[in-house]
Formats: sequence, structure tokens, C-alpha cells
Amino acid sequence: MSTPTFARWGTPPHPVELSDSALSFLTAELGVGAPQPNADLSDLSVADSSLSGEQVAALVEICGEAAVSVTSGDRIMHAAGCSLIDYLQLRHQESISVPDAVLRPQDHDMVRELLSYCSNNNIAVVPFGGGTSVVGGLTPGRGSSPEMAWIAIAMDQMNRVVEIDEISQTVQVEPGITGPQLEAILEPRGFTLGHVPQSWERASIGGYVATRSAGQASSGFGRSDDMVESLRVATPIGELELGKSTRNAAGPDLRQLFIGSEGALGIITAVTLRIRRSAAATRYEGFMLPDWGSGVAAFREMAQTRATADIMRLSDPFETKASLTMSGPQGRAGELFHRYLGLRNVRDGNLAILGWEGASRELVGARRKAAARIIRAHGGITLGTSVGSAWRQHRFDGPYQRDVLLDAGYIAETVETATHWRDLGELYFGVRDALHRALSDQGPTPYVMCHISHVYETGASLYFTAIAGASADPVAQWQSAKTAATEAMVRHKGTITHHHAVGRDHAPWLTDEIGIEGVRVLRSLKAAVDPGRVMNPGVLLPNPSRD
Amino acid sequence: MSTPTFARWGTPPHPVELSDSALSFLTAELGVGAPQPNADLSDLSVADSSLSGEQVAALVEICGEAAVSVTSGDRIMHAAGCSLIDYLQLRHQESISVPDAVLRPQDHDMVRELLSYCSNNNIAVVPFGGGTSVVGGLTPGRGSSPEMAWIAIAMDQMNRVVEIDEISQTVQVEPGITGPQLEAILEPRGFTLGHVPQSWERASIGGYVATRSAGQASSGFGRSDDMVESLRVATPIGELELGKSTRNAAGPDLRQLFIGSEGALGIITAVTLRIRRSAAATRYEGFMLPDWGSGVAAFREMAQTRATADIMRLSDPFETKASLTMSGPQGRAGELFHRYLGLRNVRDGNLAILGWEGASRELVGARRKAAARIIRAHGGITLGTSVGSAWRQHRFDGPYQRDVLLDAGYIAETVETATHWRDLGELYFGVRDALHRALSDQGPTPYVMCHISHVYETGASLYFTAIAGASADPVAQWQSAKTAATEAMVRHKGTITHHHAVGRDHAPWLTDEIGIEGVRVLRSLKAAVDPGRVMNPGVLLPNPSRD
Repeated sequence: MSTPTFARWGTPPHPVELSDSALSFLTAELGVGAPQPNADLSDLSVADSSLSGEQVAALVEICGEAAVSVTSGDRIMHAAGCSLIDYLQLRHQESISVPDAVLRPQDHDMVRELLSYCSNNNIAVVPFGGGTSVVGGLTPGRGSSPEMAWIAIAMDQMNRVVEIDEISQTVQVEPGITGPQLEAILEPRGFTLGHVPQSWERASIGGYVATRSAGQASSGFGRSDDMVESLRVATPIGELELGKSTRNAAGPDLRQLFIGSEGALGIITAVTLRIRRSAAATRYEGFMLPDWGSGVAAFREMAQTRATADIMRLSDPFETKASLTMSGPQGRAGELFHRYLGLRNVRDGNLAILGWEGASRELVGARRKAAARIIRAHGGITLGTSVGSAWRQHRFDGPYQRDVLLDAGYIAETVETATHWRDLGELYFGVRDALHRALSDQGPTPYVMCHISHVYETGASLYFTAIAGASADPVAQWQSAKTAATEAMVRHKGTITHHHAVGRDHAPWLTDEIGIEGVRVLRSLKAAVDPGRVMNPGVLLPNPSRD
Repeated sequence: MSTPTFARWGTPPHPVELSDSALSFLTAELGVGAPQPNADLSDLSVADSSLSGEQVAALVEICGEAAVSVTSGDRIMHAAGCSLIDYLQLRHQESISVPDAVLRPQDHDMVRELLSYCSNNNIAVVPFGGGTSVVGGLTPGRGSSPEMAWIAIAMDQMNRVVEIDEISQTVQVEPGITGPQLEAILEPRGFTLGHVPQSWERASIGGYVATRSAGQASSGFGRSDDMVESLRVATPIGELELGKSTRNAAGPDLRQLFIGSEGALGIITAVTLRIRRSAAATRYEGFMLPDWGSGVAAFREMAQTRATADIMRLSDPFETKASLTMSGPQGRAGELFHRYLGLRNVRDGNLAILGWEGASRELVGARRKAAARIIRAHGGITLGTSVGSAWRQHRFDGPYQRDVLLDAGYIAETVETATHWRDLGELYFGVRDALHRALSDQGPTPYVMCHISHVYETGASLYFTAIAGASADPVAQWQSAKTAATEAMVRHKGTITHHHAVGRDHAPWLTDEIGIEGVRVLRSLKAAVDPGRVMNPGVLLPNPSRD
């Protein structure tokens, strides 16, 4: 409580600063915004826990003394995720809703008993993994949730590897383990999970599964929902073990109800995931394609002819320009680089990053050859492996950069969607335009950029980053842009979320995604497993008055 | 009604007969069984339709006169699927339950109205696609279903291609279209679905999806449930459109509730499926591996190093022996062939069929090289492409062969399961032993053989064929073997069904697969969309008294 804590992603492993060239780019493009305060959260005053002494005693009875915390420090640190809105509210020390207690159960049985107790005593429950939600998944105080006490169930004590099956290539873990913790255990045995979301340093495996996260290597390794073999789930009224064998035709796949359930149906207490042998050879390479259309066409051809790289990322001209200006070669080297691009007809082009991980240099080489042929056929050129390696080295920098941008007076946030290839162009322009207009209405012109982050045979995702000078009310400033972007997604046949999940922030649009009947089916399901409506209320399901 | 009809798979496109060598093999291994009658079904007498004139008039009102049939011929032809039990009951002209009417709706709205009417009037509904269920999916008269009138909804009039999106590589179809009908439309445009179950000649696409079928090329093209982009479903109380965009993180994947729902939750009225460009080069090749263990190890290594062929099939020694004896080289050529196998240390080995389909000979060659290297490392040898091509030519023969075996006095049926690689050996021996014992208890020694039909990174399926001389009560003879096999699957960590679905035949074991809570969740879901409990009653969900 007395240790200073701040609403920031964290201390970067290597310096993340705004270089002079970055600052002058931002000033030129966006003007000057209002630097955002960076208050010490341990100074924040919060209301006392509304749990009665009897209730706290009951929780201690279930989990033990050490597992129950009602300190304001713990409660503040479990009150929000990592969205721009979360950070702004904390940095401005706005009055926020905090949990009445933080619980740290040790095992499945404790989780079950906690859920049963909370259900019987009308206490809301918010599962808290790595705490990296960017969609309001951890903030029942936000929006229209019922007035009731709530506890955060922090999963960080349930972070064991239960079993590694090297024959079937699966690992069973408890949900609180993080990517780095799991990889540290798999690596000496020669295996990897291969799931690398940008939140990798902090997110938990249970969180991956509960939100259907997609990692940067999803083209090769699949999304988190592709990796799940089996699940154990505790609900307020029982437990489920799903996926006992491998793929089957034994009726509806109930795993797919709890994958992506965001804590609204129960808490995942164990997950079995597919793992792979560690790569013996890797290659990350940059390419430049002449324009957005040729880049999209090349990525589509790779996906549809099974010539994918494991990591596939295509920046639009705006993201390419920002990357090169803010962290590309500067001075004389920069001049030469741009002259080279001009000579190869890809000046103002689109940067692509492809990454391969394979069992041998030969296999990586063969796959690289197939992809490079397609890139060339669409007018692209290689920029070599140094560009690829630089991208890889900075792959987790985004959230640190946002901290620094906020300090400097700029809000920055991302929105993401996906659709079929046929509709991708309209979706791209539609969302880009919506963000641009909504932010321009509230101040100087913003900078909006985008990349394709994940490809499938039938479509791809779009990941937009918007940066703008912070206005006097940056929360309202971003909320109107977010609303405009989401409505554009719905209008242009995009999903409301490709890999960030629904949370509370996207819940108003779930009906647009799955229809009134789909929402009704989800409600029936929730009523069946969570009759007391205590599981993460307000998340996922839209306000009933809307559908 | 006066056209003679028989309980047979059909008239084969090329002669399927029991050769002399096949007959002497069967006689030597199994003795002589009781030839099964082959009665003309149009002679079968069935009870009059129990629908009232008013009810028939209401159905005509919804679908039109031509779409409502109460003739006994139509009703008999929609009374059963294609399991051994179905065929035996029909061949013996046992008294079977037949639908009170056969309906042939033209479009989604008619289906919706039919379901609404039936729900309000307590008439059970059985969706009938290709009619190829082998798990009792079409026989509500079997087992413990409620006494109510029932209609079959035949989907054969809803067999249109709605849209082909060549950019996104998807096709939207109505559910009644069959594989051959769809491929005939896709092929001139240069596309293929690539889904080839053994029932391909007759099964419908809606049936694929409703049962999670897996085709012979599933290693390369995925299972039917991997191919589904979106679904439209009519339920008794509404409709759902699911999967509007491509992959997403918008909560639980409700498509996965209706995929595999076997008509128990609603009727699929449109499906959008991923398609691929037709292969420019194909290669089917036979290999021989020295024993089951080395074959399994080679298949596992291919799956786990992403060196899979599109079609991967590994026969155990018994299936290999039967194949070679019944349809391999005979006489002097046979002697030479077996001497060659002996010289290469693979006599009494395991036959593998690998098939590749690719964009060019070069790509197929590269993939073939990676796979062949693994086969060689496990002591295997190539038998060349003639063996592969012969397999391909006869890939749909199984059901025709069963007709001929029944005529000759032998029952033949298949059971299938899957599990993780680690448990595959025990599952194989456990199910094999169970089938062997159960059938031996009722007559002469049976012949039991098996192949791996589908591989995944974490596991594989096992497809057993059992042949035995028919006893005086062949239905009871097979049912006891089926029960023993399913119980062995449950005991040895196998799924109760890898690609045949649950139907009524596997429903008693669904609790073993998904647990009591899983069944309870399914029941809640059914209550939400089918409150009148009219949708294919008895299928999927076990009898309530058991869980």
C-alpha cells in the first residue's frame, strides 16, 4: 500500500522513449496535447469494503487467511484492466469502483466453493488473470451492473503446470500461469506453446482462453481457441470437464461455450493446450509492397495457397510511414533507404513482416521461398532480416509506448476487427474514416494507422491504432471515437472484436454480432450455470433493454 | 410405391462382388453364416398415418400440396438410416416405426413455419438429409422416445448453391445439396470443397454439419466442422444467423452448439463453407510399414512436424492382410509381391495410403518428400502410386461391400473412436479385444480390423470393421458387440464417436463424454430453443434416468 504504484503498463525491459524524430513527427501531425497526470495510486482513497465481518470470515474459511485481502492497495490494483479508459481514469484519480475484497484461491475446489458461496450470498465475482483486459472485462462498476458487493478472484496462485504429455504434445496448466512462466518450463524440454499476444509479458493462459486471444504467430500456431484440447470449469452450481479425448463428433462442442465466456459463466480452473517442438530455425524478414491493395492481395494468396508464414503482418501506408519516421533509419542512412525504396517502386509502400519458425533451416527456407515468390509477384521487395529482427525485438513495446505518449500529451488506443477478404477493403476504409472523423470533431487531426495482424483462408483481421492530442476530457474524446469505430465495423460486415473480446465495452453491440436469438440462447445458458447472476455481471451480454 | 426398393446402399457405379479369393478367405476365417433376406420394401405394410386430416391440411397450407406425402413408400424410405441394424430390420421386414408424413419444404421460411406448427401441435420432427446416418439419427421409433406423431422433413428440395464468393473462397449452400452436386458446380469454376466422407455419394452438406462429419482428406482439408464459416438455423421458436464475419473473439462460439446438434435443436437451413482452388496436381501412394507401432509413430511424426499428407490412412496388420488377400495381386504376381515385402522386411506389415492434392507438381513433390523421409526413417517402403490409385478408385466401395456380405451371410459394421497419441495403443487393443470377445461369444471367431483414418497433432482416430457370420438373431449379435466396443472406448480414454455422431445409438454414453453437468447444460439449451421437445426426440441426449 505504501509502495508507489502507477497506472502504467510497467517498466520496460529496454528503454522506450519518444525520440526527437518521433516527437517532431507527432508535433507536426497532431499538434501539442495536454500531458496526462501520473498519480501514485496508493494515494487514492477508496470506500471501505462493504463486506460484513461475517462474509469476510466465510471467505477466510474457504480459502484461508492469507488468500483474502481487503487492503485498499490490493483492491485498487484489481479494479481495472489496461485500456486507455482504465488508465485515464486512474491517472486522473477519478472515483472508481474497486472490489470489496481480493481472493487468491489455491485450487479448483476453493474456486468452486467461492463461487457457490458468492452465488448464495449475492456477491458478484470478477475473475482476474493477468489484468490486461482492454475491453472493460474487469470493471463491473462501469456501466449498468447491479448494485452489489463484488470480489476479484486473482488467479496468480493457481499457476502450476499440472502435466506435460510429450507424446501427444499437450500441456495441462492452471489458469493463472503466464506465457513467460509456461515457456520457461517448456523450453528446457524442447517445446513451446507459440502463443504471443502483445500482452504476453503479463497476460495469463486462463485469460487467453476466456477471451479467445490471438497471438502474433497465429497464422502458424493458431489462435488460443485453436490450441485448447480440454477445459475444467467451475460454475456457481457445479463443474464441467470438457474435451476428454481429441477431436470428436459427440454433439455440440461445449468447450466453445466456455472458451470466450469472459468469466460470465464460470471460472476456468485447468486448461490442456497443444504444444509444439521448439523451432530449430527461425527467420524474420521485412518486405515492402507497393500499395495496400497489392499487399492485401499477396497476403490473401499466401493464406489461400497454404504458403503462410507463421507470423504475417502488413502495415498500411500510414503505419509504414510512422514506423519508418519514428524508428527507421535516420539522417544519411534514411535518405539512402528512401532512395532505394524509390528505385524499387515501393516508396510510400506498405511494410510487411513475415516470420517463420521451423524444424530446420531447409524447411524454413522452402516455406520462405514460396511466400517470397508471391510477394515478388505482387511487386514487393525484401528489406532483409534486420528489419524483421528489429520488429521482433520491439514486438512488446506498444503498451510501454502508450505510457510515454500519455505522459507527453497524446492519447493512443487500438481497435480491432476482422472480416472476409471480399469485404476487407470497405471495412478498412470505413473504420479508418470513422476514427478520423470522430477524433477530428474534438480537436486537431488525429493520426490513424492500421495493419493486418492475422490471416485466415477466408479473411483477415485489421488492427487500428489512433493517436491524438489529448483534449480536456480525454475519456469522452476516446469514447466517441470508439463508438464510431464499432458502429463502422457493424456497418461494414466486420466483427465487433477479433481478439480483444467483448467485455463491457463491446457488449452493447453483441446483438449486432449474434442476433437477438443468439443473445437469448446465451442468456439461457447463463441462467443455467449462474442462476444467481453473480459471474462478472455486465460483461459479454448486452443490457436487456436493448435486444 | 410400386417401384421395388431394397434396404441396400445402392447400385454400385462399378461391380462390387465377392471374388473367389475373398469368399475363400471369409469361409476360412469366419465359417459360413446365414444369408440375409433382401425383401422388397414396397411390400412392407405400415400403419396408416396418425395425422388428422386437419393436421395434414395445415402442413399443406405451409408447404404446398406437392411437398406433403403420406404414401407408405415415402414413409418407409424415410424411416431409417444406413446402419447395420437399420438394414437388418428392413431386410427382415421387422415392424418398424415410420414417419406419419414426409415433408419437402422449399425454403427457410417454410422450415421455420413447419417447426413452429409442429412445436405447437406436439408433432415430432426428424430432419432427413441424405439419410445416411449409421447411429440411429433418423429413427425416433427406436428407444425411449415419447409416443407422438412424427414427420420426416426431407431436405432434398433445398439443394441450391446460394452464392460463391471467389475472393474469400466461400460457398453458401442450402443444406440438402450433396457432395457430388456441389462439386459439380464448383469444379468448372476451379474450386473444391474437398470433403469426402465414405457416404459422399449420398450424404447432404447439412448432414455433414449436423453430425460433424470428417472426410477422408481431413488431414489436409479439415473436418466439416472446420469448414463452416456461418450457419442459418431455424428452431421451433425463432432463427439464428451465426458467423457473420470471419474468426472473432465475440464471446462463446454459438455455431459450435448447432454444428453437431443432429436435429435436436433446430434445422440448419443455410451453410457457408470454406472452399479451395482445385488441385492442379495429385498423388496417391501406397506404403508398407513393418508393424503397427512403427506405423503409428510415423503418422504421429508427420502430424506433429506439419509434414502431413492430405489423406492419411494406416491399416493394422489384419486390415492389411484382408485387403491384400481379398483384392491384392493374386497367383504368381501375388507370390512375387509377398516375396518382395519379405525382402524389404515388411511382410505382415501395415499398409499406409497417403494422398496429396496441391497447386503444382513441385509443391506436391516437396510435401511427398518430407513425408516419405519420415516413413523411411520408421522402416517403411513405398509400394508406388498404383496401390494408391487403386485405393482411391475403390474409396466409396465399403457400403456396397456390406450389401454383398449380408447377401452372403456375413454381418459387417464399423465403429470409430479417437484419442490422444499417448493413449492410442491401449484404445486400439481395448476396442479390438472387446469386439472380438463379444462376437466370439455368439458364434465363430469374427474378423476385426482397423485403420487410422484421421490424424491431428495431438491424436488420431481409429476406424474398426468387424465381420462375422450372421447368427440367427443378427441384430442382437451386433448390438452386444456395439455395446462392448463403446464401453471399451469409454474405459480407454477414447471418444464415443469421432465422426459418426451420437444419434440414438451412442446417446446412453454421452454422459461419459461430457459429464453430468455437460448434459445438464445441453438440456437447458434444448429447453431454450425447443420448449415443446419436438426436435428429433431421443437423439443426442441420454435418457434422463441415467444421468
